[in-house]
Amino acid sequence: MSPIAFSGALIDRADHVRGDPDALASFINWKARLLQLDGLDPRIGVDGRLAWTSLADAAPDSDLIFLGLERTDAGERGCFAELPAKRHQDGEPYANPNLWTALSSLSSDELAIYGAARALKDWHNRHGFCARCGHETQMAKGGWQRSCANCGAEHFPRVDPVTIMLAEFDGKLLLGRQPRFPPRRFSALAGFVEPGESIEEAVARELFEEAGVRVRDVRYIVSQPWPFPSSLMIACTSTALYDALTIDTNELDEARWFTREEVAAAMAGDEAAPFIAPPPFAVAHSLLKWWLEQ
Amino acid sequence: MSPIAFSGALIDRADHVRGDPDALASFINWKARLLQLDGLDPRIGVDGRLAWTSLADAAPDSDLIFLGLERTDAGERGCFAELPAKRHQDGEPYANPNLWTALSSLSSDELAIYGAARALKDWHNRHGFCARCGHETQMAKGGWQRSCANCGAEHFPRVDPVTIMLAEFDGKLLLGRQPRFPPRRFSALAGFVEPGESIEEAVARELFEEAGVRVRDVRYIVSQPWPFPSSLMIACTSTALYDALTIDTNELDEARWFTREEVAAAMAGDEAAPFIAPPPFAVAHSLLKWWLEQ
Repeated sequence: MSPIAFSGALIDRADHVRGDPDALASFINWKARLLQLDGLDPRIGVDGRLAWTSLADAAPDSDLIFLGLERTDAGERGCFAELPAKRHQDGEPYANPNLWTALSSLSSDELAIYGAARALKDWHNRHGFCARCGHETQMAKGGWQRSCANCGAEHFPRVDPVTIMLAEFDGKLLLGRQPRFPPRRFSALAGFVEPGESIEEAVARELFEEAGVRVRDVRYIVSQPWPFPSSLMIACTSTALYDALTIDTNELDEARWFTREEVAAAMAGDEAAPFIAPPPFAVAHSLLKWWLEQ
Repeated sequence: MSPIAFSGALIDRADHVRGDPDALASFINWKARLLQLDGLDPRIGVDGRLAWTSLADAAPDSDLIFLGLERTDAGERGCFAELPAKRHQDGEPYANPNLWTALSSLSSDELAIYGAARALKDWHNRHGFCARCGHETQMAKGGWQRSCANCGAEHFPRVDPVTIMLAEFDGKLLLGRQPRFPPRRFSALAGFVEPGESIEEAVARELFEEAGVRVRDVRYIVSQPWPFPSSLMIACTSTALYDALTIDTNELDEARWFTREEVAAAMAGDEAAPFIAPPPFAVAHSLLKWWLEQ
């Protein structure tokens, strides 16, 4: 399978550094790199890659999020993102077309570094208070924890597991349109895994809830970290027991069965295709590509 | 593969009921069942099964968590758990041997209902305040959401994806001992998936961090919801590149390679086995069973 976007970062997360204040401080130096973000969005340099500067560009009252260590000819250097003291209130990413254009220009390993930074910064922005007691919390462990001095609670960055899945019936594939999708886009159905259910159960439940389809033989294919805001996309396939659809119109504008030829045309970007495929950085794209190769 | 404990609940989660106050109210009646919990622990009836009573047993100032609908000969009935107004501060589940004895007596579908109820109740207990603004939040959608009247934030039950994995080298399997394990217990290594990494990357990172082992060919096997406090266990296997171990003693007391015969003896409960296998309700048990059957 080709590289999955938002995974494969070429830095070492160096967990042992996060929890060791002396080690962490030793990487806050002139060699360190600071990822440039506009709010939560990536800043792209003239070379078309992620823009980095040095820690000198961080505001004195900012916190630094430790993204990890990068190996260079001159040894290891720290990679950081800045968390300004004043929290940024960000808009809905799916309503920001410039973001998606910027993402399309980045390689999968650059997307991975950006995705981790975005997910962490966004988590801090939205978790400044202790969910257990309501007091303000402080960043700890290089940004991989927030601690409450009042009640002692430790809070960790949230990752929400989401299933995204194909259902196949008689050689045809079920795809749907969420209301927020651009015109003519169809993609795999998806939904959050809830407490008390397995991946396989979540896949079956979502397909029944959203499209009225019962499935068997749910099978895991691939996973992807998705930083909007911080999901773990778990891509699966399944076999539908019938092709009658009952659409939940709160979740989907439309769902339809597509033939192999129709999916192939959409993935090839054919103008005559009956729909527009998800973009290459979405795991649904990888999932459709996998299906065509079967 | 045999049933996975904590999955396969025989109730319909009925998402459409949660968000519809009238529909939800219509199931709060004399037919409804109330799951009995002692704090977060299950109460076991004289028949050795989960104890249920009616909603008449809920305190007037309790909130009700809607677990789902159960089909009976007399139609559907609601299943609920009680969230007392006074939050219970629960101890560490792993330090409570009575809990593990109780779990051993329950079937996998009963464990699934209990697990969902425990995870939700625990989440409410630990999330009474808005992480975004610090104000108190209120339960919504039958317990599947908390809402902040101050800033408008909506909070959803947390599910933390955790990888749990085998590494194989030359026919031998890597297992480890966490400090909190009972004497002689060895199990699969495990660790949380972080923002910005795929399942496959998390498996490789954890095995290197905890045991110093590099792996290839990470492969998904099975998943399990684990309600301590609310994880999604994602069980994988992998192939190690070498068998030299470097143990992270903060995470593990010990890690060792075991032969197929040694694993088989432990899984059979043989007293002469070199270790005690994880209990049947742990996904590590299913993973070891799968490996022996390969």
